[in-house]
Amino acid sequence: MNAENLACSERLVTAGYVRQGAQGRRAHELRLRALLEQGKCPEDGWDESTIELFLQELAIMDSNNFLGNCGVGEREGRVASGIVARRHYRLIHGIGRSGDISAVQPKAAGSSLLNKLTNSLVLDIIKLAGVRTVTNCFVVPMATGMSLTLCFLTLRHKRPKAKYIIWPRIDQKSCFKSMITAGFEPVVIENVLEGDELRTDIEAVEAKIKTLGAENILCVHSTTSCFAPRVPDRLEELAVICAKYDIPHIVNNAYGVQSSKCMHLIQQGARVGRIDAFVQSLDKNFMVPVGGAIIAGFNESFIQEISKMYPGRASASPSLDVLITLLSLGTSGYKQLLKERKEMFSYLSSELKKLADIHNERLLDTPHNPISLAMSLKNLDENNDVAVTQLGSMLFTRQVSGARVVPCGSVQTVNNYTFKGFMSHTNNYPCAYLNAASAIGIKKQDVDTFLKRLDKCLKTSVKERKKEKNVDEISNSNTSSEQLEG
Amino acid sequence: MNAENLACSERLVTAGYVRQGAQGRRAHELRLRALLEQGKCPEDGWDESTIELFLQELAIMDSNNFLGNCGVGEREGRVASGIVARRHYRLIHGIGRSGDISAVQPKAAGSSLLNKLTNSLVLDIIKLAGVRTVTNCFVVPMATGMSLTLCFLTLRHKRPKAKYIIWPRIDQKSCFKSMITAGFEPVVIENVLEGDELRTDIEAVEAKIKTLGAENILCVHSTTSCFAPRVPDRLEELAVICAKYDIPHIVNNAYGVQSSKCMHLIQQGARVGRIDAFVQSLDKNFMVPVGGAIIAGFNESFIQEISKMYPGRASASPSLDVLITLLSLGTSGYKQLLKERKEMFSYLSSELKKLADIHNERLLDTPHNPISLAMSLKNLDENNDVAVTQLGSMLFTRQVSGARVVPCGSVQTVNNYTFKGFMSHTNNYPCAYLNAASAIGIKKQDVDTFLKRLDKCLKTSVKERKKEKNVDEISNSNTSSEQLEG
Amino acid sequence: MNAENLACSERLVTAGYVRQGAQGRRAHELRLRALLEQGKCPEDGWDESTIELFLQELAIMDSNNFLGNCGVGEREGRVASGIVARRHYRLIHGIGRSGDISAVQPKAAGSSLLNKLTNSLVLDIIKLAGVRTVTNCFVVPMATGMSLTLCFLTLRHKRPKAKYIIWPRIDQKSCFKSMITAGFEPVVIENVLEGDELRTDIEAVEAKIKTLGAENILCVHSTTSCFAPRVPDRLEELAVICAKYDIPHIVNNAYGVQSSKCMHLIQQGARVGRIDAFVQSLDKNFMVPVGGAIIAGFNESFIQEISKMYPGRASASPSLDVLITLLSLGTSGYKQLLKERKEMFSYLSSELKKLADIHNERLLDTPHNPISLAMSLKNLDENNDVAVTQLGSMLFTRQVSGARVVPCGSVQTVNNYTFKGFMSHTNNYPCAYLNAASAIGIKKQDVDTFLKRLDKCLKTSVKERKKEKNVDEISNSNTSSEQLEG
Amino acid sequence: MNAENLACSERLVTAGYVRQGAQGRRAHELRLRALLEQGKCPEDGWDESTIELFLQELAIMDSNNFLGNCGVGEREGRVASGIVARRHYRLIHGIGRSGDISAVQPKAAGSSLLNKLTNSLVLDIIKLAGVRTVTNCFVVPMATGMSLTLCFLTLRHKRPKAKYIIWPRIDQKSCFKSMITAGFEPVVIENVLEGDELRTDIEAVEAKIKTLGAENILCVHSTTSCFAPRVPDRLEELAVICAKYDIPHIVNNAYGVQSSKCMHLIQQGARVGRIDAFVQSLDKNFMVPVGGAIIAGFNESFIQEISKMYPGRASASPSLDVLITLLSLGTSGYKQLLKERKEMFSYLSSELKKLADIHNERLLDTPHNPISLAMSLKNLDENNDVAVTQLGSMLFTRQVSGARVVPCGSVQTVNNYTFKGFMSHTNNYPCAYLNAASAIGIKKQDVDTFLKRLDKCLKTSVKERKKEKNVDEISNSNTSSEQLEG
Repeated sequence: MNAENLACSERLVTAGYVRQGAQGRRAHELRLRALLEQGKCPEDGWDESTIELFLQELAIMDSNNFLGNCGVGEREGRVASGIVARRHYRLIHGIGRSGDISAVQPKAAGSSLLNKLTNSLVLDIIKLAGVRTVTNCFVVPMATGMSLTLCFLTLRHKRPKAKYIIWPRIDQKSCFKSMITAGFEPVVIENVLEGDELRTDIEAVEAKIKTLGAENILCVHSTTSCFAPRVPDRLEELAVICAKYDIPHIVNNAYGVQSSKCMHLIQQGARVGRIDAFVQSLDKNFMVPVGGAIIAGFNESFIQEISKMYPGRASASPSLDVLITLLSLGTSGYKQLLKERKEMFSYLSSELKKLADIHNERLLDTPHNPISLAMSLKNLDENNDVAVTQLGSMLFTRQVSGARVVPCGSVQTVNNYTFKGFMSHTNNYPCAYLNAASAIGIKKQDVDTFLKRLDKCLKTSVKERKKEKNVDEISNSNTSSEQLEG
Repeated sequence: MNAENLACSERLVTAGYVRQGAQGRRAHELRLRALLEQGKCPEDGWDESTIELFLQELAIMDSNNFLGNCGVGEREGRVASGIVARRHYRLIHGIGRSGDISAVQPKAAGSSLLNKLTNSLVLDIIKLAGVRTVTNCFVVPMATGMSLTLCFLTLRHKRPKAKYIIWPRIDQKSCFKSMITAGFEPVVIENVLEGDELRTDIEAVEAKIKTLGAENILCVHSTTSCFAPRVPDRLEELAVICAKYDIPHIVNNAYGVQSSKCMHLIQQGARVGRIDAFVQSLDKNFMVPVGGAIIAGFNESFIQEISKMYPGRASASPSLDVLITLLSLGTSGYKQLLKERKEMFSYLSSELKKLADIHNERLLDTPHNPISLAMSLKNLDENNDVAVTQLGSMLFTRQVSGARVVPCGSVQTVNNYTFKGFMSHTNNYPCAYLNAASAIGIKKQDVDTFLKRLDKCLKTSVKERKKEKNVDEISNSNTSSEQLEG
Repeated sequence: MNAENLACSERLVTAGYVRQGAQGRRAHELRLRALLEQGKCPEDGWDESTIELFLQELAIMDSNNFLGNCGVGEREGRVASGIVARRHYRLIHGIGRSGDISAVQPKAAGSSLLNKLTNSLVLDIIKLAGVRTVTNCFVVPMATGMSLTLCFLTLRHKRPKAKYIIWPRIDQKSCFKSMITAGFEPVVIENVLEGDELRTDIEAVEAKIKTLGAENILCVHSTTSCFAPRVPDRLEELAVICAKYDIPHIVNNAYGVQSSKCMHLIQQGARVGRIDAFVQSLDKNFMVPVGGAIIAGFNESFIQEISKMYPGRASASPSLDVLITLLSLGTSGYKQLLKERKEMFSYLSSELKKLADIHNERLLDTPHNPISLAMSLKNLDENNDVAVTQLGSMLFTRQVSGARVVPCGSVQTVNNYTFKGFMSHTNNYPCAYLNAASAIGIKKQDVDTFLKRLDKCLKTSVKERKKEKNVDEISNSNTSSEQLEG
Repeated sequence: MNAENLACSERLVTAGYVRQGAQGRRAHELRLRALLEQGKCPEDGWDESTIELFLQELAIMDSNNFLGNCGVGEREGRVASGIVARRHYRLIHGIGRSGDISAVQPKAAGSSLLNKLTNSLVLDIIKLAGVRTVTNCFVVPMATGMSLTLCFLTLRHKRPKAKYIIWPRIDQKSCFKSMITAGFEPVVIENVLEGDELRTDIEAVEAKIKTLGAENILCVHSTTSCFAPRVPDRLEELAVICAKYDIPHIVNNAYGVQSSKCMHLIQQGARVGRIDAFVQSLDKNFMVPVGGAIIAGFNESFIQEISKMYPGRASASPSLDVLITLLSLGTSGYKQLLKERKEMFSYLSSELKKLADIHNERLLDTPHNPISLAMSLKNLDENNDVAVTQLGSMLFTRQVSGARVVPCGSVQTVNNYTFKGFMSHTNNYPCAYLNAASAIGIKKQDVDTFLKRLDKCLKTSVKERKKEKNVDEISNSNTSSEQLEG
């Protein structure tokens, strides 16, 4: 509906009404203009109609939607299924070019805009979430782990001699695998127990650097968000050490965008020391489907180097999801979600404490972990290990998802490395425990239902143990393996 | 994406690519412009993306989609369910105003455009389909029968003394009811048998007019499309009589738009005599969901009078459906459908004849009916009536839909009028028969499958009768009642 | 995913997980079962996925979606456009049969279920909204006005001699037209002024009945929801009179379902006297697109008679919309909307009073009107009429929709009847005024924005009058005509 | 609609009709059952309603869609935007687990089924397309290049000493980058010119292996689909050499699934020698959006090893796209597309030859390339290089996409490697040329329009050169850089 078409419309419908309609249209255009000009997430979320109109506008700028296009290449954005075309809003060409996942595509001005805007909005949100001096970022349609791998592969070209990655232990398979896949040898730094908390052993890190020689170390690979009783790494200290020894520093910030504490750690680390890149999950921080990550950093050229390491065009689907989500939430909506998460964390914390008391257990004291909580399972664990695992199964079949029971002393071998006490981030944590987290999007109802079901399960569990019988649910015990992987 | 926004985009994406995208956009705008300027169905169908973009453009011109609107009326186009909003493309205000279903709405420039354009495109298609001198029409979200009622109600104000409607018999309940609902007394003119065909008894019509007195007659209510062996009414002769006696003439053209013969009859009737309005089904002619009709005519002011009789705003849903459909088909697509229907009619006709021969039955000779065919069921009917009804049930359970068996001599009372030989359009048709039609959208596979299943059913039926057993399917015999109503 | 398919799935995916999935599925099925068994609106709204799954389940029960169907009828539910098919969830056959809009269709078990369930849920909601003794109702895809017409046409067959409809005046075109279209002569009963309110002149009604003779009167046609300062008719007294004189009573309850007061009036009327049918708008009460109404009553057979008057199948679109909406809201959601509306009415009322005071005007005292309010425009009207109309235009161009200015003394002729003081429900209301309503779905933001803009417009308006200049907006004065029609 | 719910329905709608509906439903279920049992692509494509019903069935088996679920983990499949939820059919959990991209997820039985089925169907199609002895494959949501990288990274663990990848030259950036990113040194084997064709220099490959030492070589990285005049590598000979020297062999089969010749080469290579994995693009072979690849092979455990290298869960979006597409096409639909492609290749070939003759150019004789063609641009190139580049720009602005002009002697440096004659796969191809391809989904109209526009551009180009003027389009010359990257 450009000016000409509006003029034509006035012949069909009273001019005054058409003008009113045009004025209505104008408001949508102005929103779009602000977006294009500022490249920032709007404060107030857009309604669905504005978003869909915008996406369709982008789509018709791509050559596969040109009415007069003829294609004689090997990749023409043709789509066989109407369902598929529609669910992607006919944006088919993906993002990036063979040279660079952040690059624009000649055939696809619309998709290119989508790519640029998404990265720009995401950058805006990262700043808003607390890393104010971030300079560059891009969305990559890969898991956090694979994105970490890409960072490591990029560093390889800068540090050809390096073989090792210094890694304060975190028992999450894909973190570990990200280094293995990249072809490096992880050097595991065991955590130290401070009260109930497991914290970074800074001295051990420095000692190891000296032993191995800085030039043989690809980078330090630290972690923010993690399951209690582990807490975020001491990023400031690590960053200082990295600066001191001139070692790159890659931070796994998996679901840390949702926590101002995690973001503050990164901001501080970059201020006082060295952080080369920090990587975060799209789905865990922005409530979109699994499958994307954001690679961000403080040095524009390094982040660009990473983006140039991805060989080939990539799926626009995660970018599209996060763009839609941010436009629909607006910064005010996103902030609101962050606020609610924080409140729910407090609520979960206090309620879980009460429940623990009732069951003669303890909410572990982990003040440095802003997302995850742990409650001891001493009574359950007393006699046998099975009871703990069984509790996990019971919760699973009662549709409690995400609660994670951690028995003592499980041993697991991942890519030939053997971890004692796997899942607990240390060889010998004093007790078995159960994790629960307050992650973005959680509702009070989640917490309440969880506590109710947990209470029941604990009661049942105690009874069962008294009967010394194996419940039928043990057949589901394979499900407990989920909890090994997070 | 107006010029300003494109300019902004050039800062994000290579200007040359954006310009290319803008050029792509332009092509969609030009299509829309042609539509708005000419108000005609485009020759080539539009792709889905152009259609959806167009609908969204219309939607944002309606006040319920204004970003800054505030509503303090009793009807503000608010929608509680997102599903509902989306499926109507957020076009919520319906069509028309309390004064006139064709009128534009101040609150809804987009919906008003939709309404105007739909009526304009439909008019274009009616011309193309053969009624070249039609001057005006509008889509009304009511069944054909209810739309006929509206015509009769309009005529009442012009002919306050009239009580009767002259109606050459057609055994379809809603035709009959349309007159009863309007409060008039149908005067049934029995058809005459010419060969196998049932045709209008012109002399009886004229005689009845003389008997009742023209001023007491609201109108002649004739029919084009109908089940064989009835054939379309002799519209020319009826139109001439109407002109002669100054009696209005309303034509039920239910599914006649798809047949050039039916449309030709209307065109000729209007040329040589009098036709005030002709009414056709949206779903039966344009392959859209049930629920709309088109009221069309040759006198602009009379059609407007009808449109002003509908009290209140009306659903835009049928208009939206037909608009989308016509834009998606284009005139070339619609013509192609008409052509295929005609071909399938020939095919069905010749194949049904062969099958009839094999089963020692006869394809009735009804050359004046361009859509429906009838095959005698003499053998089945010989001994008992049940066998005919049963055949209907057998076909139904075998997923043959639309085949209609007509036994001899069924009697039915509709609104206190008793019809002998109901369903066969005459008191005593010589034989029982089965109807099959070639309607728009039919595929060769429909015909082939139908013939195969019919063949089987006839064979089974013969065997069954020999066994003189009642099959279990008789329990479904209520389904045969469907066929009483068409 | 029936049991067999789930068993197959266990070969592909761990059986325990599939069983968990099956349990998840079961919950959706149980919801559906409760719906089918009870035919009532669920208390808690359904999520979109359950609703869409349900609709698709219905769709595949219709013959047009049978994989092996072959169609040789004239109406086979074929759809030319994929967009159209999808937006109707492939439910193409509409509702009802030629004999009865409430009847089930052999070809379309799914659509038939849809129709039955919708009517059942709507009945449930009407009871919940206050008319507890309602026995029957059905959704009809026509405007409220046309639905009233259908009621009148049905009554005609029961009262062949009747020519008149007794109608306490309400200045809304389609109410008036509903009688004209049905072919009856409205007998206008002027309202009486009590304080600021315009109320039913019960004595005049009874007097008129005596004058005309009860047998010549088709019915009394009363109104609940209306613009202030008119208030809902005295239904109890009217119902008693109708019972006394054995005259049918049809109530126009256009947007009254949303108000417990209106519903209470109907319940009381039916209890103490006679109400044959009450008709309400779908869109105005249930936040769905324009185009449907509910005809309800206390005598099952009479309501059925009306449903049998609609000749032909009808659009399922309004039924589908309201079904989706009720399932998505649940009774709790709908009650919440009613509660919010009531609160906003109080808020609008008190805030408008304040504004009126500031501008030296008065909020008219209309305690019997639960939805609409009126504020005097004495100062504006003092010298000229144009200023009042102009205020309407100003509000319109400032995207205030639904505010309605009523000048003094406008005269309008509708279908040859001349109304003095049209729009004000009386020949000579003491002052010009402006209407604002608190209708279902209104938000606090609507009220606040409205008041702000109204305040500005009033200030501007005063200045303008002082300058005695005609503003440019007068060119939009055609928009004021909207307000003539409501 | 399980049995219970159907029974409930029979109370609302005639039992016979409901049974008919249930029978209709059954047909959809049987389709699904066949899919689950056989894990093969159905022969006939499914209609959209079956597909969507299936996807919704999957979705409700995932925990995020459980009505009673409560989530206290860090990844709960919550979605902030309704648009996003819908476009993914509420399948939010992605595919795989941290341990394995092919693994099932406890929280998401539906998504796990999706993943398993997709891989199974894709395997079926690869067999059907010609690689009959393939044993295993999986879809990975990464570009072909990145998927090759993953293969190389997996091999690293098996061949810790290896530093080199033997790579018969193909001038496509992401192929080259896939090795660089993995951290290996590509050893470029220049092609040999045979007639017009550029073919694998088998002797050079073997010589290089001997020089470098087999144990130092990670693998041979060969290519099937490529731009003419390069032709697919001599896979059989390469495979034999790999077997002989015990060197892994990874084949880049980017868009080769669509060509029986390419697939035959792989099948033969695996039969007579060694192929460890072959990687193909989803979008280029299956007409889905950019972003996925298939990694396939003949040794189940090796393919599993690769799938276990991806750290983290991955996007299900590409899997979902290809699943929908294959279900919607069926094997018959896919075969039809392959057939049409082949026919269009012949047509394009013969028509381009005619055009070349007219313009005094030559269609290069490249019988071994089944997809891409090349036409010489000798006349254009004669005097200046600019004219060739300019032709590319002219075609681009005329909405010809995918045509690729290759000037002589361009030099390009990629990751510090300098390629002479870049884009032409050799240092010094005898002439400049233009590529056009017949890829899956191409229509006759594409070919005809392309030839017409090319003809015009060539004519214009000749004139321009005569005028020795720089056209305005040179400003778009950046667009030619696209052609450097394919």
